[in-house]
Amino acid sequence: MPIVVVKMWTGVSEDAVEKIISGVTKVFVELGIPERAVEVVVEEVPKTHWGIGGKPASKTMADEKPP
Amino acid sequence: MPIVVVKMWTGVSEDAVEKIISGVTKVFVELGIPERAVEVVVEEVPKTHWGIGGKPASKTMADEKPP
Amino acid sequence: MPIVVVKMWTGVSEDAVEKIISGVTKVFVELGIPERAVEVVVEEVPKTHWGIGGKPASKTMADEKPP
Amino acid sequence: MPIVVVKMWTGVSEDAVEKIISGVTKVFVELGIPERAVEVVVEEVPKTHWGIGGKPASKTMADEKPP
Amino acid sequence: MPIVVVKMWTGVSEDAVEKIISGVTKVFVELGIPERAVEVVVEEVPKTHWGIGGKPASKTMADEKPP
Amino acid sequence: MPIVVVKMWTGVSEDAVEKIISGVTKVFVELGIPERAVEVVVEEVPKTHWGIGGKPASKTMADEKPP
Repeated sequence: MPIVVVKMWTGVSEDAVEKIISGVTKVFVELGIPERAVEVVVEEVPKTHWGIGGKPASKTMADEKPP
Repeated sequence: MPIVVVKMWTGVSEDAVEKIISGVTKVFVELGIPERAVEVVVEEVPKTHWGIGGKPASKTMADEKPP
Repeated sequence: MPIVVVKMWTGVSEDAVEKIISGVTKVFVELGIPERAVEVVVEEVPKTHWGIGGKPASKTMADEKPP
Repeated sequence: MPIVVVKMWTGVSEDAVEKIISGVTKVFVELGIPERAVEVVVEEVPKTHWGIGGKPASKTMADEKPP
Repeated sequence: MPIVVVKMWTGVSEDAVEKIISGVTKVFVELGIPERAVEVVVEEVPKTHWGIGGKPASKTMADEKPP
Repeated sequence: MPIVVVKMWTGVSEDAVEKIISGVTKVFVELGIPERAVEVVVEEVPKTHWGIGGKPASKTMADEKPP
């Protein structure tokens, strides 16, 4: 406890994934939760499969990239 | 708001994904939610990893395909 | 197949839930999927527990309501 | 993008929820993602319904509480 | 690892929840995973919010109950 | 009903996936739920993307493998 599931666009760098894992964990540690109890799972979804406003992000945000 | 996560068998066509994103979004727009607020994420799961009735769909529904 | 999970703010009317279930199902039926195979689950999350832009929606969108 | 879903034991204080929302959002902002694009949803699950090591946390961690 | 999320209709008995937690955990232990590493979360969703075949289960399966 | 989503590290053998699907289904059948009503989805997440205790499992559990 807690379980944190992060969904992002495919293509996140390994460095960014590590920063997400450590940064999110720290948020819970600061609330008094033991570090070893925090589980963070990062899932990647292609921009073609991620719709915002009725259209795939691959079309409406063609130039934006994950970190 | 809302967040919609769709899980389907791997192999959905890009055209079907677009229709899912636009069609699902429209359902919420018709309820008065602003189009830009609707987020739809389509996740693909291999039929080998999708069990119905205790067996993988790759065995029990070998001939069925995603749209 | 498919499984659709919808997360919305707490307080959606029963009528809206029914329209979401029927409307989302129809999107998949139009793609050739049998109606009985579509499963739609609607989950409600309090606005206090739904953060956008770093703040709970209960504060930044105090006047907005689910359908 | 991203969508972050946090599952925790029921009973998290409103203050803790706010700190989770703001803290988690900040992790992504520091990676260059616009603050308004980060969505964080906190879901509470009773300890009776949360199993670790084959038993409900309500039994094995009876004295531990969420923040 | 693994994380198992179970969604069921609201009204599952506490005894059934315990059997789900212990039974599901055992499946993974038999595959060689340490018992303490298995996390099982049981989430309840009202039948009004669970659609099958385009209609809420509260209508089409009015007499069926969770275990 | 129920829907069971299992998240595990990438690299689970096909045989293990089958055992998870059949074993988990059996847990619910023993509670009186019809076999055909149980849906089990197994999702694989790379160890680089699975954080425990603030670090990716690819680093802290480099030698451990999925079943």
